[in-house]
Amino acid sequence: MQQTIAIVGTGRMGANMARRLKDCGYRVTAVFDLRSEVAKSLADELGCQTCSTLAEVNSLANIVITVVTDNSAMDQIFAEHGDSLLQGAKGHTFINCATVTPAIHREIARRAGQRGANSLEACMASSITQARNGTLYLMIGGEFTVFESVQGLLASLSDGGKLLRYVGPTGTAAEVKALVNMVMNINTAGLAEGLGLGAALGLDLTMLREVFSQTGARSGVLQTDGEDMQNRAHDCYFSAAHAAKDSGIALELAHEAGLHLPLAEATRDQYLKMVKLGLGELDKSGIAELTFPGRFPVGH
Amino acid sequence: MQQTIAIVGTGRMGANMARRLKDCGYRVTAVFDLRSEVAKSLADELGCQTCSTLAEVNSLANIVITVVTDNSAMDQIFAEHGDSLLQGAKGHTFINCATVTPAIHREIARRAGQRGANSLEACMASSITQARNGTLYLMIGGEFTVFESVQGLLASLSDGGKLLRYVGPTGTAAEVKALVNMVMNINTAGLAEGLGLGAALGLDLTMLREVFSQTGARSGVLQTDGEDMQNRAHDCYFSAAHAAKDSGIALELAHEAGLHLPLAEATRDQYLKMVKLGLGELDKSGIAELTFPGRFPVGH
Repeated sequence: MQQTIAIVGTGRMGANMARRLKDCGYRVTAVFDLRSEVAKSLADELGCQTCSTLAEVNSLANIVITVVTDNSAMDQIFAEHGDSLLQGAKGHTFINCATVTPAIHREIARRAGQRGANSLEACMASSITQARNGTLYLMIGGEFTVFESVQGLLASLSDGGKLLRYVGPTGTAAEVKALVNMVMNINTAGLAEGLGLGAALGLDLTMLREVFSQTGARSGVLQTDGEDMQNRAHDCYFSAAHAAKDSGIALELAHEAGLHLPLAEATRDQYLKMVKLGLGELDKSGIAELTFPGRFPVGH
Repeated sequence: MQQTIAIVGTGRMGANMARRLKDCGYRVTAVFDLRSEVAKSLADELGCQTCSTLAEVNSLANIVITVVTDNSAMDQIFAEHGDSLLQGAKGHTFINCATVTPAIHREIARRAGQRGANSLEACMASSITQARNGTLYLMIGGEFTVFESVQGLLASLSDGGKLLRYVGPTGTAAEVKALVNMVMNINTAGLAEGLGLGAALGLDLTMLREVFSQTGARSGVLQTDGEDMQNRAHDCYFSAAHAAKDSGIALELAHEAGLHLPLAEATRDQYLKMVKLGLGELDKSGIAELTFPGRFPVGH
């Protein structure tokens, strides 16, 4: 059966995945977004259909990639009653890319299975540019045979498969993703403290970043966010609000496991503080606004 | 004038620096340690003198490398009254390698200057093995002309100078070092939380570390400490007690600057907890004992 692809959730990630798949010769037949004008604009660009219901999505594609914002949106597009991707789902494969809890991935897989459909989780540890270039780091959870059935498509999004990893049954990828983001957010918050204190001491921050990069303080976020923190360049690639959400998912898992994780908690609290201060849509590097002297005029 | 070198403080770092300098053809003429049997053993190995007073050290060497444990030890070996490295110090150069506060480096430089001696701070961002191999990452603070006068010697400790950086006036190197260790300790504590939660979720930690290394969670401490955390291999290279001290130095600077750094505080508290639990002499990777389920049987 020929693969026909729909995208549900046409924000920047979803739209760029659609563009990449079309570039690679895949048949992208339908798009859907609650903001219908956003979906319409992408449909016009790609020359495909925009849908007004989720049932219509299923009628136009047998592989549906979902890129929605949170647990509640996932629950809604896979609702057991009313308009839903579960309608006419038999034989379809859902590839769910939202960063949501492992529990919701397991629940959606259960619901899809009851309707004779397949469900995979595809957790992305990279961002908008990588989606457009097809160089996403993708971690896949679900049944291995289902993974194999869409491996070509997934490889076209992940540098020919070089960045594609099958990590285990449904839920595992979300767990790994939550841990990646939890540790990344901690490293980001810690870097903002180091550079902020360096600024307070009057140190040359370019020198300081170079020393960090050559010593035990080096990290991925030093490379991606260090200069942005120094220059207050907080255009959003991964928002502070998302960082707060993802650290929250990890802390929920920790709570269920009976673990106390003070660094993860302090980091989540910093990102929640940004949201409260109206800085939630800055990039995660914007956390430096809380730690550099004299930047954000709040009492801390 | 020929350079003659003494080492004050012959713990593992100081002893290995002495061995390296001798290997490189430098004249190591004297060693001193409060634990006289430790100094004696090293003196026998190197074929040099062991001293019973600090004044005697100055009589045998014109360059004195100090590698002591803390502010109080620095204050003591450079005491303004009684036996001290200030006696007979005229024309001598002190190279002070302890990780202590910027303020004490400035104070020692002041005292040395009053006696016609020179003082440099040499902060090391690496450990025992690197001291032996002459591959220390060395950050130097002090007067540039003094730095130049001992540059050859310092280069022989730092991979021919490739890892040698002059960072600014006295105090700057200690500030940079405090920031390096503060950020390194945060990353270490965060990694221990990520791997600990992964263990609680039953994930394959070797897979998890690989994913971390390929994503935004990657860091220097992931490379140096990740596997040790997984395997509970906490032989000491950089002790938890030292980590607590170094994070404390950075937090003192933050306090003086009026900055609140919640991640650095949470990290210092974790390392202080290790000390309180009798785990202070484990390597810093031993912080995983606090975050992995079922490892250290305390109520958290």
